[in-house]
Amino acid sequence: MIRDLLEKVRTGDIGIEEAQEGIIRLLYEQGEDFLLDLHRHRRTGFPEVIYARGKSTDQVLRIVRSFLDSGGRAFVSLVDDEQERAIREAFPQARILRAGSLMAISTSGERPGELGTVGVLTAGTADTPYAAECALMLEEIGARVIRAFDFGVSGLHRPFLGIRQTREADVLVVFAGMDGILPTMIASLTDKPVIAVPTPVGYGFGGGGETALRAMLQSCVPGLLVLNIGNSVGAASAAARILTSIRRRTDGQV
Amino acid sequence: MIRDLLEKVRTGDIGIEEAQEGIIRLLYEQGEDFLLDLHRHRRTGFPEVIYARGKSTDQVLRIVRSFLDSGGRAFVSLVDDEQERAIREAFPQARILRAGSLMAISTSGERPGELGTVGVLTAGTADTPYAAECALMLEEIGARVIRAFDFGVSGLHRPFLGIRQTREADVLVVFAGMDGILPTMIASLTDKPVIAVPTPVGYGFGGGGETALRAMLQSCVPGLLVLNIGNSVGAASAAARILTSIRRRTDGQV
Amino acid sequence: MIRDLLEKVRTGDIGIEEAQEGIIRLLYEQGEDFLLDLHRHRRTGFPEVIYARGKSTDQVLRIVRSFLDSGGRAFVSLVDDEQERAIREAFPQARILRAGSLMAISTSGERPGELGTVGVLTAGTADTPYAAECALMLEEIGARVIRAFDFGVSGLHRPFLGIRQTREADVLVVFAGMDGILPTMIASLTDKPVIAVPTPVGYGFGGGGETALRAMLQSCVPGLLVLNIGNSVGAASAAARILTSIRRRTDGQV
Amino acid sequence: MIRDLLEKVRTGDIGIEEAQEGIIRLLYEQGEDFLLDLHRHRRTGFPEVIYARGKSTDQVLRIVRSFLDSGGRAFVSLVDDEQERAIREAFPQARILRAGSLMAISTSGERPGELGTVGVLTAGTADTPYAAECALMLEEIGARVIRAFDFGVSGLHRPFLGIRQTREADVLVVFAGMDGILPTMIASLTDKPVIAVPTPVGYGFGGGGETALRAMLQSCVPGLLVLNIGNSVGAASAAARILTSIRRRTDGQV
Amino acid sequence: MIRDLLEKVRTGDIGIEEAQEGIIRLLYEQGEDFLLDLHRHRRTGFPEVIYARGKSTDQVLRIVRSFLDSGGRAFVSLVDDEQERAIREAFPQARILRAGSLMAISTSGERPGELGTVGVLTAGTADTPYAAECALMLEEIGARVIRAFDFGVSGLHRPFLGIRQTREADVLVVFAGMDGILPTMIASLTDKPVIAVPTPVGYGFGGGGETALRAMLQSCVPGLLVLNIGNSVGAASAAARILTSIRRRTDGQV
Amino acid sequence: MIRDLLEKVRTGDIGIEEAQEGIIRLLYEQGEDFLLDLHRHRRTGFPEVIYARGKSTDQVLRIVRSFLDSGGRAFVSLVDDEQERAIREAFPQARILRAGSLMAISTSGERPGELGTVGVLTAGTADTPYAAECALMLEEIGARVIRAFDFGVSGLHRPFLGIRQTREADVLVVFAGMDGILPTMIASLTDKPVIAVPTPVGYGFGGGGETALRAMLQSCVPGLLVLNIGNSVGAASAAARILTSIRRRTDGQV
Amino acid sequence: MIRDLLEKVRTGDIGIEEAQEGIIRLLYEQGEDFLLDLHRHRRTGFPEVIYARGKSTDQVLRIVRSFLDSGGRAFVSLVDDEQERAIREAFPQARILRAGSLMAISTSGERPGELGTVGVLTAGTADTPYAAECALMLEEIGARVIRAFDFGVSGLHRPFLGIRQTREADVLVVFAGMDGILPTMIASLTDKPVIAVPTPVGYGFGGGGETALRAMLQSCVPGLLVLNIGNSVGAASAAARILTSIRRRTDGQV
Amino acid sequence: MIRDLLEKVRTGDIGIEEAQEGIIRLLYEQGEDFLLDLHRHRRTGFPEVIYARGKSTDQVLRIVRSFLDSGGRAFVSLVDDEQERAIREAFPQARILRAGSLMAISTSGERPGELGTVGVLTAGTADTPYAAECALMLEEIGARVIRAFDFGVSGLHRPFLGIRQTREADVLVVFAGMDGILPTMIASLTDKPVIAVPTPVGYGFGGGGETALRAMLQSCVPGLLVLNIGNSVGAASAAARILTSIRRRTDGQV
Repeated sequence: MIRDLLEKVRTGDIGIEEAQEGIIRLLYEQGEDFLLDLHRHRRTGFPEVIYARGKSTDQVLRIVRSFLDSGGRAFVSLVDDEQERAIREAFPQARILRAGSLMAISTSGERPGELGTVGVLTAGTADTPYAAECALMLEEIGARVIRAFDFGVSGLHRPFLGIRQTREADVLVVFAGMDGILPTMIASLTDKPVIAVPTPVGYGFGGGGETALRAMLQSCVPGLLVLNIGNSVGAASAAARILTSIRRRTDGQV
Repeated sequence: MIRDLLEKVRTGDIGIEEAQEGIIRLLYEQGEDFLLDLHRHRRTGFPEVIYARGKSTDQVLRIVRSFLDSGGRAFVSLVDDEQERAIREAFPQARILRAGSLMAISTSGERPGELGTVGVLTAGTADTPYAAECALMLEEIGARVIRAFDFGVSGLHRPFLGIRQTREADVLVVFAGMDGILPTMIASLTDKPVIAVPTPVGYGFGGGGETALRAMLQSCVPGLLVLNIGNSVGAASAAARILTSIRRRTDGQV
Repeated sequence: MIRDLLEKVRTGDIGIEEAQEGIIRLLYEQGEDFLLDLHRHRRTGFPEVIYARGKSTDQVLRIVRSFLDSGGRAFVSLVDDEQERAIREAFPQARILRAGSLMAISTSGERPGELGTVGVLTAGTADTPYAAECALMLEEIGARVIRAFDFGVSGLHRPFLGIRQTREADVLVVFAGMDGILPTMIASLTDKPVIAVPTPVGYGFGGGGETALRAMLQSCVPGLLVLNIGNSVGAASAAARILTSIRRRTDGQV
Repeated sequence: MIRDLLEKVRTGDIGIEEAQEGIIRLLYEQGEDFLLDLHRHRRTGFPEVIYARGKSTDQVLRIVRSFLDSGGRAFVSLVDDEQERAIREAFPQARILRAGSLMAISTSGERPGELGTVGVLTAGTADTPYAAECALMLEEIGARVIRAFDFGVSGLHRPFLGIRQTREADVLVVFAGMDGILPTMIASLTDKPVIAVPTPVGYGFGGGGETALRAMLQSCVPGLLVLNIGNSVGAASAAARILTSIRRRTDGQV
Repeated sequence: MIRDLLEKVRTGDIGIEEAQEGIIRLLYEQGEDFLLDLHRHRRTGFPEVIYARGKSTDQVLRIVRSFLDSGGRAFVSLVDDEQERAIREAFPQARILRAGSLMAISTSGERPGELGTVGVLTAGTADTPYAAECALMLEEIGARVIRAFDFGVSGLHRPFLGIRQTREADVLVVFAGMDGILPTMIASLTDKPVIAVPTPVGYGFGGGGETALRAMLQSCVPGLLVLNIGNSVGAASAAARILTSIRRRTDGQV
Repeated sequence: MIRDLLEKVRTGDIGIEEAQEGIIRLLYEQGEDFLLDLHRHRRTGFPEVIYARGKSTDQVLRIVRSFLDSGGRAFVSLVDDEQERAIREAFPQARILRAGSLMAISTSGERPGELGTVGVLTAGTADTPYAAECALMLEEIGARVIRAFDFGVSGLHRPFLGIRQTREADVLVVFAGMDGILPTMIASLTDKPVIAVPTPVGYGFGGGGETALRAMLQSCVPGLLVLNIGNSVGAASAAARILTSIRRRTDGQV
Repeated sequence: MIRDLLEKVRTGDIGIEEAQEGIIRLLYEQGEDFLLDLHRHRRTGFPEVIYARGKSTDQVLRIVRSFLDSGGRAFVSLVDDEQERAIREAFPQARILRAGSLMAISTSGERPGELGTVGVLTAGTADTPYAAECALMLEEIGARVIRAFDFGVSGLHRPFLGIRQTREADVLVVFAGMDGILPTMIASLTDKPVIAVPTPVGYGFGGGGETALRAMLQSCVPGLLVLNIGNSVGAASAAARILTSIRRRTDGQV
Repeated sequence: MIRDLLEKVRTGDIGIEEAQEGIIRLLYEQGEDFLLDLHRHRRTGFPEVIYARGKSTDQVLRIVRSFLDSGGRAFVSLVDDEQERAIREAFPQARILRAGSLMAISTSGERPGELGTVGVLTAGTADTPYAAECALMLEEIGARVIRAFDFGVSGLHRPFLGIRQTREADVLVVFAGMDGILPTMIASLTDKPVIAVPTPVGYGFGGGGETALRAMLQSCVPGLLVLNIGNSVGAASAAARILTSIRRRTDGQV
């Protein structure tokens, strides 16, 4: 323990050189504790999410419980229906929400305060589950979300409608499959940050989201920010980081 | 020869069974000649194009000459500057045009009559050489071409402008690189046939036209007709086939 | 509303500059309505198709109903058997057809008039479902379809047979898997537009239609028009666009 | 012209219905002009960049001149040395800067005011040219840039150093090739937005930036924002969008 | 009919020119019949195989029956267990064999005479079903097959053992998955034709036979003849073609 | 037999030339036996593992029995639950262990002596089954294994913790999915051999372990030793080879 | 030496056990010599070819010389012009031939006797250099080659022509780029072995021979034997193996 | 500085809590220095290598000089001839070696002591430059290298020869291109660690080393340790790590 070494320095039991040597050695031995401290000091804008796929229901329950015990909240992604049932049974008092395959479980009463506003848009109905996960995640960490899902008919007017509906947002998250055209159209009409998330919607060659991913990376409008296919949690985290930067400035922090 | 067999039938030298047998045998032996006749009978809407890459200048000159001798016209694709120089020197009397890396050489005076109208559009300046090849090819076979190249500024208004400029076209050929978005936008605004040609314009992952190709194949607007990257001659041929179908009906042929 | 602005101009309540400014602002605010009008004005040759995969049966039924209410017809692609059953139960009076995984539901009595003729060809029995979807779609929008499916034996004579059977067609749609050879052979024997659709038929490396797609894009006969693997609806749409161009000319429209 | 219609409404030459009809028709005919107006009204945070590759020196000069004439500034990406020389000769009075293959040319005296602060980091010396392009672009549009290039030795301490040096930044842009590990390490130590740009630095299988791109998309730390390989201009644009969102809030705009 | 034309030539009803013209026209109209004749004349060393996947049991039964009626034999590849059961029930008198997913059904008593000898080798137990299909196919068309499957232990001695066991073969077919090393080792020890068939045996990256396929195409021993992954029927056909060429020479035909 | 030839040489029945000729011939004929001898002479550090996938339960049981009979031990990889049950029933006296999908069955009492120490580390919980297989395999062949699985929280401290926990190991095996970052971080902190095993853990583009594999091959820390995705048995074998080399030196063998 | 051991057996200096042990040990120590003997005993139908790319001119000359010294012949593939010049200067007396980038150098007077006949066909002029290499290689090892290059016009008749011209061949080698259609058409018209060699001729996506390779592997005609792109030497070797098998039977060897 | 804090603790200027707090803060602020200390304490078995590609000659010289000044040695990989010349001119007194594109420059007299023995093998002449780089690197860090390059003739005996020549090695590094067969054959004959390095030697599809890489990852012999294509420096580093582990045990360290 650093404390012990300091105590001995104070009492003169050891010299400064020796103490310094000892601290280095300690850090080498216990580097992780030191680094954990670093982590604890860092203001984290985004909670850890439990990845349920490939875990047994028991494992998931145990990890959820430990999260609830320590922080009053747990997020589980890629849950299946059996895991959901088990979680609901195990935590009957908790407030539980599900969107797509993401669950938010909380036992502490309060929600975080207002972090900022995110516009979440989809190109088609099939993209909705991914967008819903992203929106749930964002709301749970204190963001206001404007949903612009499912315009009903397709066509060139869609980006205009989307832009108007999300006028108050600080950042836009746009989900699209197939040729991934919507984020580029949105980005051509706004100077806000646009986070583009390809979804596994499509057919034939390059279906499964790969064409959308490539088209977003190759966008003819500069400045699109791209995530991996279906990565709704990552998109929420990225949006939260931007909101945090905005808040830090409006709070006059940095 | 079929003729000889028929002659022998007429003179009674051989019976009908034997003649029939002989004709079958002849065709088996000389199937290609029979098939050549088929080809000669077929009305071909599109000339053969000489692929210059990998051929020596001498080879190219020899083939051009044989085309000029037999039909008064020759097309050479993927010419380099040395090959162009040699062609111009070898055929000083010919009418010679070049667009991109395509040359049209003709010694016969007249151009084919009006075949119909094609709109050729590009997404950016870098797509122009490909579009120019396609337009030259189409004009040389008798089509009217409306060029809608190089709108100067980018943005969502581009497809509207393109649609308006090519209002009189029977078919549209749209060249685009990067994310290949323009043909899809055009197709969402018109019910005309839209031929989409990806160009090798782009950067990084999926540059070289591959992302544009994939996005066109995965277009969220149904009915896009796609060609391989940079295949301007194929696009001209495809457009010519459509014009030919139109003309056949307007001429009341079929 | 533009109307209100015009009214005020008439009454002299506002000046022309102000009205013009207001119209621009309105359009910016309500761009989508403006664009919707554009869409309504555009003569659409092809109906929207409901993509059933990933939608719940309830969602599909609700969307089908809204299509039937507004236009008397609905098309659903990629239906599964449960969805089909639910649709048949929900709309017992409707005329319902199914081919492959495409359903056509109509409650309005009349079919569209004659649009033109399309030849639909297949390379093998396994390609038939895709070709059947394309043919159904085309017939429902008013095209005459000549089916040239399933020649029974394979060999070089197949393209000749196909060409002869579809002699009256304005455009050919050719479905092929494996090495995708048939469209190229067809295109070498005709000057009609040839739409090539790869199917997910094949084995081992490049099975699933990818080899057929690549071979069609790399065809040694120029002018093949290619769609994504299994994209029968897109092929029908593309053929309809060509028929529409023909009809516009024969009607003397453009 | 809308103006003419309004004039006629005022004079009573046409009724309101007719004027409304006429405006719709005009917009359909001249949609692009309307949309251009939209674009002019939109506050654009990022200038258009001229892509020099594949353009002749003459073409580049002409476009640069038109940019300088209209806005006093021009950016040219992917310039080669000959193009640079020609630009310097053609505009001897201009203030000209070059980083990597990006040139910034300006004839108007003033630079834009402070937009915010961006930290630009690199994983290795070979990433520097891309990072320099991004930094130049950002400074030219009014951002303050903290460069954290080239730490000299490699190791786990690098992200700590990078984090400390860019403490005042609102957003971080991190360039890395090979296994693309640095952005993930940075993102694990900060809650700021992290824009990850793969560079074409590496060897053998997956060199050329593709492995870095994939690793960034697959990052085990959520919230990384990814751009295409070497897309320094896109990264600058994305950072500018984030700064703009921050500024809008600190200015109390939205 | 050609016959009718010949008859008219004989009777003098038509001249030779006219008859020749008519024959050409007939062939154009009925090209497929002509080509069918060609096919019937060609000595075919290999029967057509019915591809069962994607066909209904009824379809398969109907095609099998037509094959048995016309030639006394049918081959069905990629059968599933239900299809096998139905075939066995439908043709209780037939001699039916199954290997892997290939079935051979015959109602005619005699087997074809001796065509030559093929050595069929496998690298591991998992390759056996593919090799068994190939061997069954070959035996059914009259080849003698030496099976060298499943050596029990692995190691460098395996190719020696394989070579010795198949000493009397005219051609070797070698099945291997994973790194596909066996065919190359065999080819380095013999001057016989070696047909290499990758199998979908392996794990992780490049499993599913793709690595084996690539390694066979890239073999450091020249002369390996490669087929697609799991293409046992194609391998049997290729071996039969070689045996046919041998037999033609030993019979003194060509 | 060589013995017979030697006997005849001794008795003078054959001359030396003839005997030499005969031995060569024998070896050619029986090359495999000779090579088998070579194999038996070679000290093998690693047992053969039975690959259960695609084998029937009967086949697996038969092979396990033959291994137990000859050597008292058998390893079965990729077992499913049915196969495990059958093995446990068939060999009730055997000591049976299972980790992931690997089973170790032994009937001989003693375990091999101490071979050396291996540290086995994982990046996340989902990697554990693969690491457990590797660890079981290693322990069964006589290695001591230090497991450093599942650190509970993620972050930069993880490699420090891993390094400290496995301080006594001669070689480290590190399992990681997603971006495969952990082995590189470990390798940057130690000079021990680091065997990196990608696992099929991830999502979207490049999930399934491919991104981890590529990142490990492209590691910015030199000296990472990479295996195929999920290849836990190969990793155990590789580690065993290194331990064997160490032991050979400490035993003063080579 | 085995000889020494045998001598000692004869003189009774060592017992049979000891001699046997010694022979095993010797073979282990000198396995390669034993195996070399095996190789010398094997009748090799195909000479080794020197791969010139990446070797210095000096290295190439030295290896050519050693081949000429030992066997009177040398083959060098992938030579560049400088290497060719050096070879011609170094061996002025040799008979030297070049086709494509393959050189054949021979100093021994006689050519091998007649091995059989190979038909070598090309789909287009650009495939000729590869076919010429294959033909030269085959002629140098004693095969008769029928060249069917460059039919002048394209179309469906080409395979008929090719079949007829190569009627006397035992095996056909067909070179094709682009969509690689020719070998499949040839194989549908003959029962001879067809070796298909993709060439790096094509454009855009899948150019460089990859589409041709895939189409050949996915051929709808069973029995195509495929080699890697441009592998003319491998094709010659494969054809030679087939001719050798034929000759062995006609000579009554096996 | 930690030292200052300790001093203050000793003098009682600050309390223990405060000192502890201060140390944590310091480390957070100067984490990299702390981590640098860690790095300095770690015994590094392998020097850093300067990657010359993409650096100017001046940059390379400056970095080489700084390495020579601090440690007396520098390694430069991927040097071109101009860079080599400049280095030789700049450091005329240094001992300079070059193999492939790797240079070793040293100004300090002594070489490191014996670290252990590595066998370096190649499959063909074209692999030699990569193997030579690896061998040079290893020798410079104190390893003994047994080179087994270039066996002159190809065949199955090669691995036996390689095994015998490298009998005294602790670890083998095997370089191979094309189908990458050699490392697998070597690994089947030895229980030593085998490091497999694919080289960019090959042709057509999968040339450039990719097939070799895949085959090594998919090896049918377990325990192959794979590096990226051409990664000779990584292979040397990996071998050095193994030697270091051996030495640590033989020295009785761990």
